[in-house]
Amino acid sequence: MKFGLIVSKQHPAGVSMVDRFREHIDQVRAARDAGFDLIVMGQHFLSTPFQEVQSLPALARLAAEAGPMRVGATVILLPLLNPVDVAEQVATLDVITEGRFVFGVGLGYRDEENEAFGVAAKERVGRLVEGLEVIKRLWTGDEITHHGRFFHLTRARMMLRPVQRPHPPIWFAANNDAAVMRAARLGDTWVINPHAKLAVLERQMGVYRQALRDAGRPFPAELPIIKELYVAPDRRSALKECQPFLEAKYKAYASWGQDKALPEGDSFSHEFAELVADRFIVGDPNDAVREIRRYVERLGANSFIFRIQWPGMEQAKVLRSIELLAKHVFPAFTKG
Amino acid sequence: MKFGLIVSKQHPAGVSMVDRFREHIDQVRAARDAGFDLIVMGQHFLSTPFQEVQSLPALARLAAEAGPMRVGATVILLPLLNPVDVAEQVATLDVITEGRFVFGVGLGYRDEENEAFGVAAKERVGRLVEGLEVIKRLWTGDEITHHGRFFHLTRARMMLRPVQRPHPPIWFAANNDAAVMRAARLGDTWVINPHAKLAVLERQMGVYRQALRDAGRPFPAELPIIKELYVAPDRRSALKECQPFLEAKYKAYASWGQDKALPEGDSFSHEFAELVADRFIVGDPNDAVREIRRYVERLGANSFIFRIQWPGMEQAKVLRSIELLAKHVFPAFTKG
Repeated sequence: MKFGLIVSKQHPAGVSMVDRFREHIDQVRAARDAGFDLIVMGQHFLSTPFQEVQSLPALARLAAEAGPMRVGATVILLPLLNPVDVAEQVATLDVITEGRFVFGVGLGYRDEENEAFGVAAKERVGRLVEGLEVIKRLWTGDEITHHGRFFHLTRARMMLRPVQRPHPPIWFAANNDAAVMRAARLGDTWVINPHAKLAVLERQMGVYRQALRDAGRPFPAELPIIKELYVAPDRRSALKECQPFLEAKYKAYASWGQDKALPEGDSFSHEFAELVADRFIVGDPNDAVREIRRYVERLGANSFIFRIQWPGMEQAKVLRSIELLAKHVFPAFTKG
Repeated sequence: MKFGLIVSKQHPAGVSMVDRFREHIDQVRAARDAGFDLIVMGQHFLSTPFQEVQSLPALARLAAEAGPMRVGATVILLPLLNPVDVAEQVATLDVITEGRFVFGVGLGYRDEENEAFGVAAKERVGRLVEGLEVIKRLWTGDEITHHGRFFHLTRARMMLRPVQRPHPPIWFAANNDAAVMRAARLGDTWVINPHAKLAVLERQMGVYRQALRDAGRPFPAELPIIKELYVAPDRRSALKECQPFLEAKYKAYASWGQDKALPEGDSFSHEFAELVADRFIVGDPNDAVREIRRYVERLGANSFIFRIQWPGMEQAKVLRSIELLAKHVFPAFTKG
């Protein structure tokens, strides 16, 4: 089992981002010392109402504190970005981390982001697929000529290659069934999203396995799942302490349209207990062990990436959760 | 007087970039301990025949070693990039460096880069000017709507603002007269390029001063100049040791078309002595002091950014140059 930490870079308006970033540095050191295997960040642009740093320079800085941990972008919004730029930045991060970078890709879903980057929503899949093809060809180090629908290169050559060969693992974020099938066809693994309920994910795991079989591809060695997690010494405190921050976060998701990406008419407009059940991991350490086991047994997940901070949640609580995980939760699982 | 170091990230094909990056980390520590004020990197994409990391993640990682030094991108190729992406990445770097980031912009000149980013050469100035306007408006933190020739934003808002207010200093790289005039109109200062000879730069300083007067703008407090510099205990060794690397670098520049950006029919096709004279600073420490003084006196430069490594130049020589500068060159000037 592997454990990862989302360094949760969204913060409320008005707070000092210099102070928050110093706290992120301390979180990464704490995660390293606690035996985490991986730190990751997502990506958004124009993240109103939150302040949010950009993930690639932030991860590059945090890599200095990561020690033996892998460092990953769980999602780079590839349809918005130029594949040469992404290929070179990811290869750079693979150099900086000395071959420990994880390259996650996703479509994105926000109109604000699509407009800002001049990308039509219906072009996103085409841009992702073509962009990824260009990136993988550039990473061979060969001279390539490409004249596609979106990108043109004539005898282009990228001498800087990633440290990992043929390239860093390509993780696919996917919420709806079409995206899950694409993850099976094009990705090295599917990063199971934190938004959907367990029953939905179980059904989608069937979609994923079938798509793998159809493509003649093996089941991935590492199957990561992202989970909102909050652990406190007792269940009641855990629920009470995380509720305001998790509720506000999921309200913001709903206003961004993230819940439109959910399958089967699920939404985030629930009472908190209903929002938590079969979706988040909140409780005392024993609750966390039991919940993690359910996702292991029912989905086959073997790599848990926890987000334990949401905008406004104070540092001391994050560090306490990390400590409780290290002392009481990780020992229940075999590392590796 | 301020002194900066270009962390020279271009390396020959085939060498280990992990090893080279570790050396860059050591260079930054050496520069910090030697009393440098600033580290910087340029930017290129598809840098055949060299291996080259991307500057923004590389600078973010090196910021961890920079201590009190400023950290700068002497050039970000703004016409190739999306202004929302650049605004957020630069603001992130300003957070990471706790308000010590320098934002340099330039047009670029390579056809390979323009094609890869889908930018017509004749659009570059328009993209730079419009992109910079969008970036500066985003950095106010206000909601902005922008419908320009290249970019569209509707009620977009970037909550993450740079630490420096109103924004990090905007440095303009400029080689030809039109670019120098643009630097005067739009930049906080002109970064004097390392390619042209002193007589050309003197004439262009007149162009710059006149353009500042025309725009009603004051002469900048900091006037940086980039110089290829190599210092050894004696002049003869200095010339001999740097010649193969500097010559090869300027041959690559010529093949990239950089010398087409030079004014007045200058080119890089010279014998080495002719290439060096009035252009590079190569010699013993006394030579370096004398040469620096000439650029101070004749141009008014008060911030020297040295490149002391070119593809293939070994680390020990770079570190020795840094040490000689600290011991024998910097003491001849008043810091500030």
